Amino acid sequence: MGAVTPLVKENKPSGSVKPIVDLTKADMERVNALILSKAGSDVEMIPEVANHLISSGGKRLRPMLTLATAQMFGYQGDSHVRLATSVEFMHTATLLHDDVVDESDLRRGKSSARMIWGNQASVLVGDFLLGQAFRMMVETGSMEALRVLSDAAALIAEGEVFQLAVSKKMETTKDDYIAVIRGKTAELFAAAAEVGPIIAGASAEEQQALRNYGMNLGLAFQLVDDVLDYGGSSADLGKNVGDDFREGKITMPVILAYQHGDDAEKAFWRKAMEDGENDDAALEKARTLIARHNALNASVSLALEYGEAARRALAFAPDTPVRDALMDVVDFCIARIS
Amino acid sequence: MGAVTPLVKENKPSGSVKPIVDLTKADMERVNALILSKAGSDVEMIPEVANHLISSGGKRLRPMLTLATAQMFGYQGDSHVRLATSVEFMHTATLLHDDVVDESDLRRGKSSARMIWGNQASVLVGDFLLGQAFRMMVETGSMEALRVLSDAAALIAEGEVFQLAVSKKMETTKDDYIAVIRGKTAELFAAAAEVGPIIAGASAEEQQALRNYGMNLGLAFQLVDDVLDYGGSSADLGKNVGDDFREGKITMPVILAYQHGDDAEKAFWRKAMEDGENDDAALEKARTLIARHNALNASVSLALEYGEAARRALAFAPDTPVRDALMDVVDFCIARIS
Repeated sequence: MGAVTPLVKENKPSGSVKPIVDLTKADMERVNALILSKAGSDVEMIPEVANHLISSGGKRLRPMLTLATAQMFGYQGDSHVRLATSVEFMHTATLLHDDVVDESDLRRGKSSARMIWGNQASVLVGDFLLGQAFRMMVETGSMEALRVLSDAAALIAEGEVFQLAVSKKMETTKDDYIAVIRGKTAELFAAAAEVGPIIAGASAEEQQALRNYGMNLGLAFQLVDDVLDYGGSSADLGKNVGDDFREGKITMPVILAYQHGDDAEKAFWRKAMEDGENDDAALEKARTLIARHNALNASVSLALEYGEAARRALAFAPDTPVRDALMDVVDFCIARIS
Repeated sequence: MGAVTPLVKENKPSGSVKPIVDLTKADMERVNALILSKAGSDVEMIPEVANHLISSGGKRLRPMLTLATAQMFGYQGDSHVRLATSVEFMHTATLLHDDVVDESDLRRGKSSARMIWGNQASVLVGDFLLGQAFRMMVETGSMEALRVLSDAAALIAEGEVFQLAVSKKMETTKDDYIAVIRGKTAELFAAAAEVGPIIAGASAEEQQALRNYGMNLGLAFQLVDDVLDYGGSSADLGKNVGDDFREGKITMPVILAYQHGDDAEKAFWRKAMEDGENDDAALEKARTLIARHNALNASVSLALEYGEAARRALAFAPDTPVRDALMDVVDFCIARIS
């Protein structure tokens, strides 16, 4: 492993999802039942493909955000269950399409759907789940929730296209990269946390606060994911370490290492990311350069900043178990770096 | 060409889209402006990919249906322009995803987007346009239009997955096939024609009548498309003749020829469609067998029946220029067989 130094441990929070899991347990059972029902179809291939991914053990963090944020404002109806399921379907659709885009062979530690059923099924079942998501939103009758989630649908795709456009381009800046992950990851976290207060009839300020919480949480979450791609293990991550590198995906650690590199290092990065010279030896060298310039630690620091902003967004709220649970989610996302 | 006989000419209507084009001209200019604006993005790849397809000269029949059916009930606002644009974006998104699914190299006579920008861009820009479509629906404030179009989004994808599931399967029945094209094609025609009366505040009966019109028109339209794939020319069709055959897509002419074929012919079809023995000689033989069993004429007859049902659905309406124009669209769709 050469000169790879351990990640920063100081100030690293040790959150847990247990509080939010416990608080949303009853509602999540209804979400899980609705997921199975709405992924159903007489066309057998649809539940096959959908359930392959749905049953593969994602944490369902996003729907839990919707349930918890509705609870936070005392919501008593059942529209939050539909909206939470919509959010999870939007996420699942994105994963199915991402696997086609990234040509991934692994997802959550299992063969990706496209490896089993082909790109075609992944594209079309993703489209089906997105359609089902919008049908459930319509069932809630909340035009405001529809506005937030349709905005998210467009902005997620826009972020993904931006990522594709800057892929293999070493001139990608930090700002470009934050714009990419804001779209591809943080917008759905933000929307998930915003539709809870919306359906509960919270004030515009409260909606905006929860939106800010979700947005900053999402940015922190993605930055941690990017760090794990250079430092975690395949078992933790449900994908292969170095996947981003091999796909020429420019992430924060790479941007920072490149910016601080000398000419020879810059040339290495261009060859690796732009020309595809990205074998195992190149990955090892990339990790060494990232460590040399402290680029993982700097990425983690940035994640901690966004995490802090997410916590600050909740400061307005009374000190309740739901608020604490949402705070813990922030710490949990960052604590995945072990 | 051997034994290929000419298509039925008797009773063939000779409709025109000119009346509907003329009636919706002013509104379509607003739709076209909105298409350009809503396909815009700071991420340059999005308008590039979207405009490649958007500017390639589709007839924009579906948005014209929305505009004309709103006009039919005296609509005076501007939500029909947004809904018509949403319908066209849903269609464009489907085409982008279809090209990936079918691995097509041609679309409307030009290189398909996926050949120029790759599968990735086609998947993601399709997702973006779908998101933009839902945002525009939300802008109209019509929950009922959202219900109809989100139903359509899910049912279109379901039809496409069903097509994938029965692809290369010679046991596909006529009923299976009608279910496929109902989803993949007719649902969007039906929705396009239904949201016009909805936004105009027409009665539930009127909405249902226009929905029936669109549904039957869509079925006729797709059956004609399938016939053209074995009988038209590449220039007319904007794709290659025999594409369906080479992709192992089971369409009505194939189903009918297979059902009436002897054991040797059935063996030929299975080899061609299921095992992929589909070179030019095989295509030629397929056309001969289709002609021998009169399968193109039978498919055209079926299209004529659906066309008749579409016309009947309009019988309730007063004899106005809009109603006549919608009748002419039916005849035009069928008259593409020349």
